[in-house]
Amino acid sequence: MMRERLYLYDTTLRDGQQTQGVQFSVAEKVRIAEALDALGVDYIEGGWPGANPTDSAFFEAAPATRARMTAFGMTKRAGRSAENDDVLARVLNAGTGTVCLVGKAHAYHVERALGITREENLESIRRSVAHVVAEGREAVFDAEHFFDGHAVDPAYARACVAAALEGGARWVVLCDTNGGTLPGGIARAVEAVIAGGVPGERLGIHTHDDTETAVAGSLAAVEAGVRQVQGTLNGLGERCGNANLTALIPTLALKAPWCERFETGVSAGALEGLTRTSRMLDETLNRVPRRQAAYVGASAFAHKAGLHASAILKDPATYEHVDPARVGNARVVPMSNQAGLSNLRGRLAEAGLEVARDDPALPRILEEVKAREAQGYSYDTAQASFEVLARRALGRLPDFFEVKRYKVTVERRKNKHDRMVSLSEAVVVVKVDGEKKLSVSESMDAAGGDRGPVNALARALAKDLGPYQPAIDDMRLVDFKVRVTQGGTEAVTRVMIDSEDGHGRRWSTVGVSANIVDASFEALLDAIVWKLSRDAPAPG
Amino acid sequence: MMRERLYLYDTTLRDGQQTQGVQFSVAEKVRIAEALDALGVDYIEGGWPGANPTDSAFFEAAPATRARMTAFGMTKRAGRSAENDDVLARVLNAGTGTVCLVGKAHAYHVERALGITREENLESIRRSVAHVVAEGREAVFDAEHFFDGHAVDPAYARACVAAALEGGARWVVLCDTNGGTLPGGIARAVEAVIAGGVPGERLGIHTHDDTETAVAGSLAAVEAGVRQVQGTLNGLGERCGNANLTALIPTLALKAPWCERFETGVSAGALEGLTRTSRMLDETLNRVPRRQAAYVGASAFAHKAGLHASAILKDPATYEHVDPARVGNARVVPMSNQAGLSNLRGRLAEAGLEVARDDPALPRILEEVKAREAQGYSYDTAQASFEVLARRALGRLPDFFEVKRYKVTVERRKNKHDRMVSLSEAVVVVKVDGEKKLSVSESMDAAGGDRGPVNALARALAKDLGPYQPAIDDMRLVDFKVRVTQGGTEAVTRVMIDSEDGHGRRWSTVGVSANIVDASFEALLDAIVWKLSRDAPAPG
Repeated sequence: MMRERLYLYDTTLRDGQQTQGVQFSVAEKVRIAEALDALGVDYIEGGWPGANPTDSAFFEAAPATRARMTAFGMTKRAGRSAENDDVLARVLNAGTGTVCLVGKAHAYHVERALGITREENLESIRRSVAHVVAEGREAVFDAEHFFDGHAVDPAYARACVAAALEGGARWVVLCDTNGGTLPGGIARAVEAVIAGGVPGERLGIHTHDDTETAVAGSLAAVEAGVRQVQGTLNGLGERCGNANLTALIPTLALKAPWCERFETGVSAGALEGLTRTSRMLDETLNRVPRRQAAYVGASAFAHKAGLHASAILKDPATYEHVDPARVGNARVVPMSNQAGLSNLRGRLAEAGLEVARDDPALPRILEEVKAREAQGYSYDTAQASFEVLARRALGRLPDFFEVKRYKVTVERRKNKHDRMVSLSEAVVVVKVDGEKKLSVSESMDAAGGDRGPVNALARALAKDLGPYQPAIDDMRLVDFKVRVTQGGTEAVTRVMIDSEDGHGRRWSTVGVSANIVDASFEALLDAIVWKLSRDAPAPG
Repeated sequence: MMRERLYLYDTTLRDGQQTQGVQFSVAEKVRIAEALDALGVDYIEGGWPGANPTDSAFFEAAPATRARMTAFGMTKRAGRSAENDDVLARVLNAGTGTVCLVGKAHAYHVERALGITREENLESIRRSVAHVVAEGREAVFDAEHFFDGHAVDPAYARACVAAALEGGARWVVLCDTNGGTLPGGIARAVEAVIAGGVPGERLGIHTHDDTETAVAGSLAAVEAGVRQVQGTLNGLGERCGNANLTALIPTLALKAPWCERFETGVSAGALEGLTRTSRMLDETLNRVPRRQAAYVGASAFAHKAGLHASAILKDPATYEHVDPARVGNARVVPMSNQAGLSNLRGRLAEAGLEVARDDPALPRILEEVKAREAQGYSYDTAQASFEVLARRALGRLPDFFEVKRYKVTVERRKNKHDRMVSLSEAVVVVKVDGEKKLSVSESMDAAGGDRGPVNALARALAKDLGPYQPAIDDMRLVDFKVRVTQGGTEAVTRVMIDSEDGHGRRWSTVGVSANIVDASFEALLDAIVWKLSRDAPAPG
């Protein structure tokens, strides 16, 4: 049976940026756009060119994507032509193939917030969209406050939809801007618009989670006939967030009746990357991933109840509505020691460490990982630190060198030009091959600026490791993340470091301490030891 | 018009305890039961007496409540009578007026997980419920896997419902145990049961959030006819959690058509305590409250988009579907680079700074906020840093003191017991009232451990500010958050600090630098200056 095509329109980079506390950099936007494209969404709304420097810069730096890159903006203001509206011009100047313009579809807002007449608003919609089309672009119209407007004045709300279609819009997106419309209300309004003669193939849905029903509202709209769904990864967005694509995509792909009736651009293979993509976004924003998130949360397939756990061992389908592997997630069963151990052996094998089933080191490693995770370590992503820990417990890690002590100083004072400047310096003392070596380094970036104590420590530590120096000369620190795992005065700091080398390898390590410099040093040390375990000659 | 009564059945203390990482103490259960009772739910499911020591102890310590206290358990096992089932006996021994028993309603599970015949299962349901009723208790039957069972064998699923009603159950609760049934499927199954002759007044709904539609599924079931809703506060529960009562209750109370058709036991006054109750639960469990939670989240009524923020100032109804005060929450109009001048003036007024509409400082402040946000600052949450910035630009900030220089040292070495220990020390030099003051401090926690360079700096900076010292003596650092706003070697670190004082005030400040110690120092400095701007005498 032919399935109908459903289009996914992602607005993580635009409406997602309205999340309190979220402020993307250009580099972050680029990385997220690439992840969205790999996932297979149809549209990537990149931001509002002209509204702020980051969004403007993003469109210049935007990667080439299979998805249609889309610039967002506003319909022209009343009293000037679309051609002469500078705000609209900046949106078009971003040069995207698709342009989305938002305009009001609620008479009260037109009169109260814009202070123009209803007819002026219709004219503004029609002409703005027509201008976008005349410039050779695909036009999308976001009908703001559509549902609230439709509830009090359906004729006017629908006139706004009609104006956009007359202007040549490919899509008119019905927006529940305030997030207050429940799924039943959304379904009834969509049905009314379609009954009024607008084909569902031209309609989209945009919901917010203010009543915790954004996902259900989007599904209800699709059931009523719309064929485009707007949302964000992890449900980022203004107030309570937008419809969560991370929940919607697997439901559309895996659950009846959706998977039988519709297809999207997300392949089964890409879907298996969903959990990773969700975590990547949280890491980029340094947000703690929601354990209870549908499909992708760390607890989404965790079976804590005793009754459930024992049934799961007989047949996973008893308590799982989908196979977690389909979305790249994994089952978690409060482990009998036996299940824990076979898991651990699998993990070690992945790291190239074959270990006999009855090796007495296995329960020791499991205990140590558990104890450290209770302190704040996290080995889910810090695979290299896990490997270092395991190699040490298995007696398969040479004693390459020993750190005797270090000292780091940060000083801030006036320079000779009477400007405040800071300087960081580190001294590291190691013992290599029986020989004591003192190394000192300043922190410094390419421009001669101070990059702080962790940079100084990394440079000093990697400065002279005697016979091992050649093995680490090609490595560099590429990312550094800090999280405080407990609040307040008991705060414990977790530092994650990503490193890279000349072979194109990339590895992650972790350190935990109340002292952020200590935590960083621990992660740096693991990174070097891991690299040596791969590339160094065994100690003589 | 008479509204129909809808019953709320809370299972925070039972299914909520299946949340990964949640383990209530008896005292916590008591506190939560009291909060639930104050809120006005009809049933409080307190736990499974006999299944673990805490649950048994809770029923002995349970407070007297207006809500019906309910013990949870399982239908009797096959091959023994209800009277002789020790598991069931322990449930009844808790002495609650209401008893809820779970039993299977899906033939596959009966045969596969229980290993008994379908008829034995029906008999077990009927007799167990009858036994509860014979003991003079109100009986509730949770029909486990009802929706999955109904999808493959509707006759058997409904026979299970009928068996419980024959046994005398007051309520039969249709459970979507695996969380995989979408709202449409729930509505159709409920309609089928009611069409089969079971009155909706005897039916309840129990959903899970595995597709992020638990709230919508519960609403769909009520629309289809059920009159009892099960859920948990903050959506706690197995895997992705149960239906979130914190979202459901306000929708039922405030939103059409629900508030027109139904009434619950939650009064308008109690509803105003909802946000506080939600936060109390998170504090009890030491969970970070979800900012984006519907109705009760800190961001639920935060208007970040510039267009929204300016309309909100004209009329809150433009972008708010309900008044935040109805649920005890509050509107937040944060500063961000998307905000305009009118937003800025509103924000300044909130900080007690009245500024004329045409004050030339306004555009300067806006520009500075934008420029700083592009560097990585974020003033959404760091209101105190925003205020310091604005006061300075408006010439309304005295020069309390000047920092001339600082130096911080972190040293890690072996102590006399040959163990690696670290020590952090800071020297700060300030000029106050024309006088130079040097302060030095070590970092130290209550146990004498090292807490790192930021702690040492905070102590040294707040050690001697001359005439201003009394104004800052009651302040303390309560939270510290770090994130890296750009990856790799260009990493810029943003530090946010929360401070508190003896007046119960709490304020947030921000610092940004490539050097994490500098960024922290900047945030610490803002925190002290903000406090002085409130409490210090003007400089002489």
